[in-house]
This record gives sequence, C-alpha cells and structure tokens, in this order.
Amino acid sequence: MAFSPLVDELVESLRCLPGVGQKTAQRMAFHLLERARSGGTRLSDALSNAMEGVRRCESCQNFSDTEVCGICENPARSNGTLCVVESPSDLLAIEQAGDYKGSYFVLMGHLSPIDGVGPEEIGIERLLRRVRSDAVTELILATNPTVEGEATAHYISDRLDGSEILITRLAHGIPVGGELGYVDGFTLTHAFRGRKPLLD
Amino acid sequence: MAFSPLVDELVESLRCLPGVGQKTAQRMAFHLLERARSGGTRLSDALSNAMEGVRRCESCQNFSDTEVCGICENPARSNGTLCVVESPSDLLAIEQAGDYKGSYFVLMGHLSPIDGVGPEEIGIERLLRRVRSDAVTELILATNPTVEGEATAHYISDRLDGSEILITRLAHGIPVGGELGYVDGFTLTHAFRGRKPLLD
Ligand SMILES: [Zn+2]
Ligand SMILES: [Zn+2]
Repeated sequence: MAFSPLVDELVESLRCLPGVGQKTAQRMAFHLLERARSGGTRLSDALSNAMEGVRRCESCQNFSDTEVCGICENPARSNGTLCVVESPSDLLAIEQAGDYKGSYFVLMGHLSPIDGVGPEEIGIERLLRRVRSDAVTELILATNPTVEGEATAHYISDRLDGSEILITRLAHGIPVGGELGYVDGFTLTHAFRGRKPLLD
Repeated sequence: MAFSPLVDELVESLRCLPGVGQKTAQRMAFHLLERARSGGTRLSDALSNAMEGVRRCESCQNFSDTEVCGICENPARSNGTLCVVESPSDLLAIEQAGDYKGSYFVLMGHLSPIDGVGPEEIGIERLLRRVRSDAVTELILATNPTVEGEATAHYISDRLDGSEILITRLAHGIPVGGELGYVDGFTLTHAFRGRKPLLD
C-alpha cells in the first residue's frame, strides 16, 4: 500500500498464520487498527512471550513454559499409564474429554521417512527411556488412524517387543451421536468387527 | 491449557482477530510454535510497530506512518479531484484498479445517528475545509451503495449546496464479466436506467 509501510508489513506478517491469505490479512490489519489497537498490542506481547518462552517439556515433549510441564509434574496423574499422541492438539482434545488421568508423551509428528522424519526426530529413544524409568505398565498408542500414524504405532510397539508392558490402541467405531449414514466404510467395518454383546 | 499459561495467553490474544474462534486460535498458536517461530516474532514486531506508529493522515484521514500520507504528498496526484470513501479498504480497492489519479478523503465510517456517529465523528468539517482549501472542482462520493452510505453522500452533497463543485457518484450497473442471471434486481434496474447508446 502506497500509504503506509507499517500497514504493509503488518499485512505481510499476518500471512504467516495458517489459512490467512492477502485479503484476510488486510481485513485483520484494518480491524486491529480501526477498532482493536489494545487487542493488537496484547497479541504482540503474547506472541513475543510465547515465541521466546515456550519450550518442550523434558519429560513428555509437549509445549511447556517450564523445564517439566504441569501435567508431568502433577502427582495426581498416574505415571504407570502413558498415552502417546502426535501433537499438542491431540493431547488437548483428550484433556478436554476429561476422563484420562495418566501421563502423555507428545511425538510432535509421526514417522515419515520420505520427509526425513525418523525415530530420532520424534523422540522415540526418549519415549523408551521414559517407559523404562517410569515403570510404565500400559502404553496407549493414540497416534492418528492414518498410514503414518499406524506405522508409527507399529514401530513403537516393535521396539517394545518382549517387554511386559500392555500396549493398546484407541478403539475405532461410530462416533457417539454420529449418524450411521455419514460414517465412512472403513470405520463401519471396524465398528462391526469390534461389536460387543448388549448387556442389560 | 494445563500445560502452558504462555500458550493459553497466545490463544486468547489471537481471538481478537476477526473471524478467529477458539479452535482456529489454537490451530494458529500451535502452527506458530511448531513450525513458524520466526514468523511469530516478525508478526509480534509488526503488530507493536503498527499499533504504536500508524496514525491518521492529517489531510485525508487514511492510515499513515507520517503526518501526511504518501498519496496526499504525491505531487503527481491531482488535488482538484477528491474521492470520498468510507474505509481504507475501499481506497485500496480503487488504488488496485489503478486508473484513478486524484486524491482521497477517508471518512472511516458513515453517518449512523443510531450508533452516535454524526458528521463530527467522520470528519465532515475537515473534508469541507479541504474541499475549499484545495480548490476541488470534482468531488466523487464513493461511499457504499447502502442506506447509510447513500445518506452520508446526500449529507455531504447538501452541505456543498450552492457551490460550483461538480459532485458525482460512482455508476451502478452490471459488474464487468458478471453474468446477468446472477445480478440482483436493484442493480439490473440501475443498469437499465443508465443504459447508453452502442457506439461504433
Ligand atoms: Zn510434560
Ligand atoms: Zn493522506
């Protein structure tokens, strides 16, 4: 824009946000400048604090402000049950469901040899060390039900071959409240294979 | 999130962006933290610089880094033709069309008595002073074709009653490349009323 290099730079910078193109970035910039300057300043501070201050928890690899995160440090969470997820948003979804009381390990990705992502990159060695040191009795492999997620789960399971640890995978099936007509064929097949007797 | 107050604050702050709810804010925060920390830092700087540094041009009211903006200061732009728009994005759309070489005045809104927006709030007096001091010969009222935009255009036109200035309004009609079947009835009526002889 001819009228302001500062606005130009703001619009350009907003485009680093996922799903934000030129038009949306412009709309966001104008909105902040016209109506939400204090919100813009707050966002600026939050960004700089988070980009500098958020690191990986040394125990579970999840985002954390401290060396070891709040979940890992919480004595009320069982260390004997460890749930392996691909990303912080997966962890968050499980936390919001509210039922799980064990610990987590966040891979921050999945195995993807084609992209150069091997066991080292997603912290498998660290995971195995933790499994041993925490005397984990159940390892829940909650990676995504995708080709890469399944491959990652199998790799971890292979590495623990011969150990006493119970290794589980989340159940596939019809989403609660979901309509059968909208469920894909793979899920339906899994739901049929996993069918259970109706108990009174 | 139990695991990071810094991430919490980032997600909350991202929600000041228009159209960004909780889920999108989370996705944005995780994306920046996982894959785009330098982009996040750049955005933080751009935000703080723009929120502090961007003001209104004293001549046209548009966003500007300096007392008078680049367009107002450009000697190649005619001061005799002044185009009145509601917002910086309207100005930007006209600039991107690339044909207009006059000056602008940005109301930053429209008259809306119900919301307490009167002539003072959108700078009508400043506009009238500029019309006189710049010896404007044509005033293009490019406010939006909405009830409020039309009312604002009529108010300005009334205030200039008796002056020699040519006051114009943008033509309504079928968008170039638009299909007749998709054009609304009001626009079609305007297009019929404004029809012109086909010239060889
Ligand atoms: Zn942790
Ligand atoms: Zn200006």
